[in-house]
Amino acid sequence: MDMVTYPQHCSLKDAARILTEAFAASAGRAAIPPGDALGLILAEDVISLRNVPHYAASAVDGYALMSDLTAGATPATPVVLDGGNFAWVNTGAPVGDADSVAMVEDTSVDDESNGAKNAIKIYKSMVQGENVRAVGEDVMKGALIACLGETVTPALASLFLCAGIGKAPVVPRPKTIFIPTGNEIITPERWLGGERVEAGLVVESNSAYAAAIFKKWGYELTVSPILPDDPDTIRDALRRAVRDYDVVLLSAGSAKGKRDHSAEIFGELGRILFRYVRMKPGRPAMAADIEGRPVVCIPGFPMSCAVTLWSLVYPLLKVMSGERVEVSGSGYVAEAIGSTGALEAELMTNHSSPSGIGEWLRVKCASVGGRTLCWPLSSGASVLRALSESDGIVVVPEESLEMPKGSGVTVMLSRRVNPAERLLFQGSDDPAFGLLVSFVARHGAELVIRAVGSMAGLAALGRGEAHLAAAHLLDPASGEYNTCFIEQFARGRNWRRMRIFNREQGIITQSGNPKNIRSFDDLASGGVMFENRQPGAGTRVLLDYMLGEKKIPPSNLPGYDRISITHLEAANKVASGTADATLGIKAAADALGLHFIPVANEPYELVFSEEFDGHPAAKYLSDAIDSPEWRGAVRSMGGYKF
Amino acid sequence: MDMVTYPQHCSLKDAARILTEAFAASAGRAAIPPGDALGLILAEDVISLRNVPHYAASAVDGYALMSDLTAGATPATPVVLDGGNFAWVNTGAPVGDADSVAMVEDTSVDDESNGAKNAIKIYKSMVQGENVRAVGEDVMKGALIACLGETVTPALASLFLCAGIGKAPVVPRPKTIFIPTGNEIITPERWLGGERVEAGLVVESNSAYAAAIFKKWGYELTVSPILPDDPDTIRDALRRAVRDYDVVLLSAGSAKGKRDHSAEIFGELGRILFRYVRMKPGRPAMAADIEGRPVVCIPGFPMSCAVTLWSLVYPLLKVMSGERVEVSGSGYVAEAIGSTGALEAELMTNHSSPSGIGEWLRVKCASVGGRTLCWPLSSGASVLRALSESDGIVVVPEESLEMPKGSGVTVMLSRRVNPAERLLFQGSDDPAFGLLVSFVARHGAELVIRAVGSMAGLAALGRGEAHLAAAHLLDPASGEYNTCFIEQFARGRNWRRMRIFNREQGIITQSGNPKNIRSFDDLASGGVMFENRQPGAGTRVLLDYMLGEKKIPPSNLPGYDRISITHLEAANKVASGTADATLGIKAAADALGLHFIPVANEPYELVFSEEFDGHPAAKYLSDAIDSPEWRGAVRSMGGYKF
Repeated sequence: MDMVTYPQHCSLKDAARILTEAFAASAGRAAIPPGDALGLILAEDVISLRNVPHYAASAVDGYALMSDLTAGATPATPVVLDGGNFAWVNTGAPVGDADSVAMVEDTSVDDESNGAKNAIKIYKSMVQGENVRAVGEDVMKGALIACLGETVTPALASLFLCAGIGKAPVVPRPKTIFIPTGNEIITPERWLGGERVEAGLVVESNSAYAAAIFKKWGYELTVSPILPDDPDTIRDALRRAVRDYDVVLLSAGSAKGKRDHSAEIFGELGRILFRYVRMKPGRPAMAADIEGRPVVCIPGFPMSCAVTLWSLVYPLLKVMSGERVEVSGSGYVAEAIGSTGALEAELMTNHSSPSGIGEWLRVKCASVGGRTLCWPLSSGASVLRALSESDGIVVVPEESLEMPKGSGVTVMLSRRVNPAERLLFQGSDDPAFGLLVSFVARHGAELVIRAVGSMAGLAALGRGEAHLAAAHLLDPASGEYNTCFIEQFARGRNWRRMRIFNREQGIITQSGNPKNIRSFDDLASGGVMFENRQPGAGTRVLLDYMLGEKKIPPSNLPGYDRISITHLEAANKVASGTADATLGIKAAADALGLHFIPVANEPYELVFSEEFDGHPAAKYLSDAIDSPEWRGAVRSMGGYKF
Repeated sequence: MDMVTYPQHCSLKDAARILTEAFAASAGRAAIPPGDALGLILAEDVISLRNVPHYAASAVDGYALMSDLTAGATPATPVVLDGGNFAWVNTGAPVGDADSVAMVEDTSVDDESNGAKNAIKIYKSMVQGENVRAVGEDVMKGALIACLGETVTPALASLFLCAGIGKAPVVPRPKTIFIPTGNEIITPERWLGGERVEAGLVVESNSAYAAAIFKKWGYELTVSPILPDDPDTIRDALRRAVRDYDVVLLSAGSAKGKRDHSAEIFGELGRILFRYVRMKPGRPAMAADIEGRPVVCIPGFPMSCAVTLWSLVYPLLKVMSGERVEVSGSGYVAEAIGSTGALEAELMTNHSSPSGIGEWLRVKCASVGGRTLCWPLSSGASVLRALSESDGIVVVPEESLEMPKGSGVTVMLSRRVNPAERLLFQGSDDPAFGLLVSFVARHGAELVIRAVGSMAGLAALGRGEAHLAAAHLLDPASGEYNTCFIEQFARGRNWRRMRIFNREQGIITQSGNPKNIRSFDDLASGGVMFENRQPGAGTRVLLDYMLGEKKIPPSNLPGYDRISITHLEAANKVASGTADATLGIKAAADALGLHFIPVANEPYELVFSEEFDGHPAAKYLSDAIDSPEWRGAVRSMGGYKF
């Protein structure tokens, strides 16, 4: 049995501390032109080599003169000076032997000229030194103008130039290389090339994220060609990388797959510093010291990669750039994600976090009726979209387990967000309604859509957790849509309702309808896999109603328990062959080129809460719904009628 | 008389509004690779061209299988599957016809193999879809993945790649050129070249600041060669510039000097939008529309240049990049200076602001005894050092006039500042003491020195506005140093005192002592210009004592009223020929290679307030004072004895 001699499954704090402490002393030194040193830390004190200004200079446009000649001058009793006693100086010009400069505004050319040639009148009594910049006024030769540890700012860069400092003594940024590995990984060029890519091959997108976040941090990143999962190749590449770079990032290969060789190779070439971090995502992160260089193994899932870059690579880069990083707090993480501030919010859903593991939630925020709400987006390590959609990050500490709805959390905002200017929609999913997001965005406002289904949308409206909802719920008893459900959740409140369009619902099957499906009976006849929607979705209510009419028990429908959350998701299951049929709107079938068998025409109705009408973005949404542009776009989607 | 048809002397808000409204519609459009589009605004909605993943993929390393085969499996009652019923899959691999993947952790290879070949044991009952990523789970083909108006983030850039978007439709950043003008301006190369530069010539440093702040903002700036103050040359250059660039910045030439032609040329080539802005510094700012391009005239003084870039050019760039900017507030200014936050502080000095003009104060902050104090650094438009030294900016609104000491102000921090970790020193200037700043900085702490003179330092200590002071005040009555003055300000408080060294004071004259000065009598003998220190400075107290001893009336000393604030500043006046002599310490004379006639040896004494000892940085200062490194550096300066 192997002896493991390094920490495993450590907390993020420990991992970050181990990594930064191991390489804090590796900060380098260089002398580089101040304009290229922006954001770098000074490695030494800087002493001015020049006086600025290096001569007594006029601070204004006017006349250089001896101040004692102007004694008693006022607007009423100007003093006249003739040509020999003054000299015109522009701002910045040397004042020569003069001891002051009268501003041009305090003088006039003496047209009356009592015999004197080229005379001027002075309307103000000057004092010695007035409007004269002394030698060294800004910076004195020999003075300490910046101290080791300071950051080179734009102001300092130009001050250095003025002070005669052609090269600033700084800690240079570490040079980093990112090495993607994996037999299944293909280049962006091939992926974007448009040719069909076979199942199992995945585009190498982590280096795109890494290069972008490095750029945002002000660092450069070299991306290596993709390496196969071959230990010899990886070993050779690492040997070269630690010679040529200050920091090496090895992408993937740290988990327990049959092609994961990183730990073995790290142990062979150097000393592993830690393996596995108690965080989610990012657990397979690992780091080693190979020939004095930090080598960090970055897990392959996009979100795990992002979290590892923020939480471990960022502080490593900072300490190697001569900065101090407090790895025991989360301040550096806020910096790493480029946080624009923190927001205190109330969790809108229950959240269970795994025991003993720090979890990184990507959340979205909105404010309804004075409450600032937030909810986690998909928590999958593989889901990049949730990161691009999120407003920020909530770090759930290791010791936290159950976080019930209503818990207070702090969101580190990763973009500029004004929750009060957002409309929060919860309800039935519809792609035509989804187009409105863009129409509202044109006014700088926001419509945030949370597709939870008709019933859950009305329930959210009832709890004051949405500005508007949408429903298409058929009441089997009355054959009427929505009314009895709205009454149930409104509990006497007077919610405004608006039918915005009717849409066609039908059975969606694969293109050409290869299984020749024509009715609900065919779905239950065996050999057909159905894809259903979640409980409470209007489309599922419709399915249940239809099955009831035909007296088909749900258990006869293979796949009745398989759940998609949106029309497009369900239709996509059919398009990709995971399912043979689903129930959904014509627009979804059309978008994916699928076969459609109409079964119903239903109203899609918006329901507005009391908070909607006074909302700053309400007008933009109402205008968009009335606009010919949106209506035209919806009509062209197929299956809609206004 | 000329008719002026454009706004003059407008408020900053009006100027910024006029400029941004005039060019908000000039935002361009381009399609560029997502990695190059970071920070840009999307000009259109973006629809995914691919499913991600594009096949049903395993989310784990394990065995792909049909879930119904595992019914009833538990750790105690594992199910055995033989070779034909499962297939090993790495994370990300296609699952094929299987409907779930058992994690390797939930299985074991069946060594006992009841006859079955290549069998595995499964310890967990799987459900359909478990550990399988459905097609389009992350992003669905046809789905809206980003909306016009959104910023391209690192997450979005890599999402675009995954979604098959090779070019992002964005508003490109405007291309900007900076044209320095002025007969008196020389290139950085010549200034740094080391040759003597004659009086009147000034290094072109504004483009260095502009290029640096543009870089910080994420914009590129082209810097043109320096143009002379010649209207024809400038006119031609502007005509070319508005053809080749989106934004043109013309440096200097907007004031009333005889070589200031900008207004005339702007009027000839286009339409002036405004001239003169009611702000300090930055008043001469001006802008025009020349052939549909914004041309902004940037005043020549470094601080005026910086303020104009922040307040007018930054919002212009932003609206031309498709962003919304609220020019009526100061939020955009905080962004422009890269503000790291706001700090509420108490003004430590009185401040008079000119009537009707918005003033930009560069301030420094510290916290003493629970009060957060701030004070303006030099307010001169020409003083770049104050900007590099400052912690942030206080904008004094137009309507504000007198701001007495104690007024509450909001500091927009331009660097990361923790005022509570700073030691604030006020008192007598000394270059050897000044070296301690760097020693304290090595520990990440800060010693902030405010050289106000011995007396003012003790007074500040008395008011609780310093952690420590330093004094060398001779009491003529007792011949003793400091005691009676300390008692006067301490008013019974028990301040700790520490003599850190003795230093030589003397008459400083030009190198070689050309005027053959030997004594105070020579200073009063005519033909010698003296440079004095400010009232309350220990050195001035010493001078007065010496003059009293010799019975020389101060009025007999030409220059007695001329004031420098530090030893180095006074000595520099002598070095540059502005004065013939000053009284000061030997270290200052040595630093500038001046002649020194010793007259006294005086103790330099630190005085610590009650707040000093508990301060987090106190230990670093005390250690530094005791350190052989600092003592060695001081001894090598000359004139000091421990």
